[in-house]
Amino acid sequence: MVKIAVLGHGVVGSGVCEVVETNQSSILRRAGQPIEVKRILDLRDFDVPYRDKLTKDFQDILQDEEISIVVETMGGTHPAYEYSVAALKRGKNVVTSNKELVAAKGAALLQLAKEHNCNYFFEASVGGGIPIIRPMHLCLAANEINEIAGILNGTTNFILTKMFKEGMDFASALSQAQELGYAERDPSADVEGWDACRKICILASLAFGRQVHPEHVYTEGITRIAPEDVEYAESWGGVIKLIARARRREEDGLVECMVSPAFVHGESQLAGIDGVYNGVLIRGNATGDVVFYGKGAGKLPTASAVVADVIDIAKSPGTSKSLTWAECDENITVERRELKGDSYVRLSAPEGGMARRTVERLFGSAVFLTRPKQPADELAFLSGAMEESALENKLAALEQENLTLLSRIRLVDY
Amino acid sequence: MVKIAVLGHGVVGSGVCEVVETNQSSILRRAGQPIEVKRILDLRDFDVPYRDKLTKDFQDILQDEEISIVVETMGGTHPAYEYSVAALKRGKNVVTSNKELVAAKGAALLQLAKEHNCNYFFEASVGGGIPIIRPMHLCLAANEINEIAGILNGTTNFILTKMFKEGMDFASALSQAQELGYAERDPSADVEGWDACRKICILASLAFGRQVHPEHVYTEGITRIAPEDVEYAESWGGVIKLIARARRREEDGLVECMVSPAFVHGESQLAGIDGVYNGVLIRGNATGDVVFYGKGAGKLPTASAVVADVIDIAKSPGTSKSLTWAECDENITVERRELKGDSYVRLSAPEGGMARRTVERLFGSAVFLTRPKQPADELAFLSGAMEESALENKLAALEQENLTLLSRIRLVDY
Repeated sequence: MVKIAVLGHGVVGSGVCEVVETNQSSILRRAGQPIEVKRILDLRDFDVPYRDKLTKDFQDILQDEEISIVVETMGGTHPAYEYSVAALKRGKNVVTSNKELVAAKGAALLQLAKEHNCNYFFEASVGGGIPIIRPMHLCLAANEINEIAGILNGTTNFILTKMFKEGMDFASALSQAQELGYAERDPSADVEGWDACRKICILASLAFGRQVHPEHVYTEGITRIAPEDVEYAESWGGVIKLIARARRREEDGLVECMVSPAFVHGESQLAGIDGVYNGVLIRGNATGDVVFYGKGAGKLPTASAVVADVIDIAKSPGTSKSLTWAECDENITVERRELKGDSYVRLSAPEGGMARRTVERLFGSAVFLTRPKQPADELAFLSGAMEESALENKLAALEQENLTLLSRIRLVDY
Repeated sequence: MVKIAVLGHGVVGSGVCEVVETNQSSILRRAGQPIEVKRILDLRDFDVPYRDKLTKDFQDILQDEEISIVVETMGGTHPAYEYSVAALKRGKNVVTSNKELVAAKGAALLQLAKEHNCNYFFEASVGGGIPIIRPMHLCLAANEINEIAGILNGTTNFILTKMFKEGMDFASALSQAQELGYAERDPSADVEGWDACRKICILASLAFGRQVHPEHVYTEGITRIAPEDVEYAESWGGVIKLIARARRREEDGLVECMVSPAFVHGESQLAGIDGVYNGVLIRGNATGDVVFYGKGAGKLPTASAVVADVIDIAKSPGTSKSLTWAECDENITVERRELKGDSYVRLSAPEGGMARRTVERLFGSAVFLTRPKQPADELAFLSGAMEESALENKLAALEQENLTLLSRIRLVDY
């Protein structure tokens, strides 16, 4: 019998209790022994059948020698970090769905787990119920992973899908997402890209072996995407997705990492990922492109990923897995202005034909796009591949010629 | 240092040697120790830099106490089975890419591994380089898996993609696949669906815990799909894919399992899987639908899956994992005629309007399909959901009325 404690009886925490209860028989078969939730930490009171398990005092869990696994589903950095540290130092395994904490303190917590011969697992922190962390770590072990790209945030993907499939504007799509419970009242963490940024940092740290910090990663949200941009993306033959990506630069091992909206071609495996679904593409040197797809959030999917981690620990107690990356205080990411890529640019161009010639002069290889009912004073084109700094210089030069930048969205080629 | 032997220096076996060599540094980091190919068994001579490792005598491997892992990439049942048994009995771990053997003898070999405290791993047997076996086993451990459906054969998927995207007929698409090396000179195992059948049997055995035997699974290939069927599928809004699927029947735990061409709606995550790619959808009770996508075959993808298994063993030597299912001689599949589903039917119908009324009389809920330049004497419709036996009775009744069955393809709703 493995006894666990759950920190935080919110959406994911209560889901963990539910999955452990509902899937008892398959869990027993796979873990080799039954798993029981012994304690639940929450400051609130809940009217649940198992309310005798609730406690408001973390010490009840920490001091309980029977509890070998602590499930941390509190979210936020504090006190989740302090509780995790305390549990690991007592040799208790910690399983978390807390991407904010893993992205900020992963290396330190993994190191602590190693020192105390226990585990710090975080499958549920990326991609909800989609297995990503473990396949990446175990199954792709024989590959050098060069690149990762994903749709890692279901809220923004829901909004973008509504904008494309139903012609909604951003504000209406957001408010529908809020009504359906897919977006929070303060949607910033999702729509500004921070959530996706934390997740790509976790994946990049795991793939490349050193902590990639969210504050070093250029992150742009989807709030400025206009219906006009949607129409140009469609006429180009693709969609706009919020793409989080990381690539190891061959020359120096630095990491090119960014979160931004991107034009994705219709043929891409990422283009068809719609609604609240997530998808992650991993590019290995032997296996080629592998894509994992599924529900990236939600109570039961996320809870089932947490419970899978618990089962893995229950199966081989007392061992510490090699899942780890190195602490790294320095910035190992490439500066944004050095990153190279193609971009879609939309301008307000009062002078018509003149504007087009100006663009052609500045961007030798520009490809012009059109859309239905395109106004005469609007111009859209693809810049061709160049460094971000070069593009910015050219965009500044356009502004000098009275062409106003309305929109600029990167292209990706997954 | 972990020393391994490779049985069979064919496509996959030589790929294993290559991956172990090329990715030394990442393998060392992930396995915690270096991995070396000490011996390679093959009856042929090869002019390779490591030809001193070649042997024609399996005893050189079996008797060598330094070799702790045997990689079996010979294919076929004999002598692969006997060699695997001998290795496991000596406590050597066996890693295989041999789907035929796993589908036929998986339960027995897994049991033998357990008894001798070693492992029998087979990640590479399904989906080439796509991690499927381990994510299914480990990461979805907290789910009751109810259903699996997949495009598990790259050759047939390449052919079907050519038929849809370039309007080729089956014979031309097959011969192009052969020219490109995607299909063998005798393509039966692929185009008749046997390869996909072995793979779905492995996945079903793992998911449902008992050996599902290929000979009990109704298997239909893609050889009879005509360009007309392609056009009807397109006008319906979808594509035809060779879909291998397995579902556990709630009432009695029997397994509904089949391999056949199927109409897949354009919105399905399986519809966009084109060319030699594979995709597997797993439906869990907590996680919902999860899809894994990638190259389902090929030297390096498959070899990297083999090496990932080797690394997993190297990381925790001397332990036996719970990966297993029970031997089961009886037939645990549901008889095909009891299976229920919708079907597309195409008829030669010389009597025009009369024929339509006959179909409406026999199939109350039939939905008629059309295609460009549809001949007056051709009729196509969707039957509505019914048991296979009922459909067959109705099709026989149609024949009685001089309507000749030209084609019948099942619909799936993934």
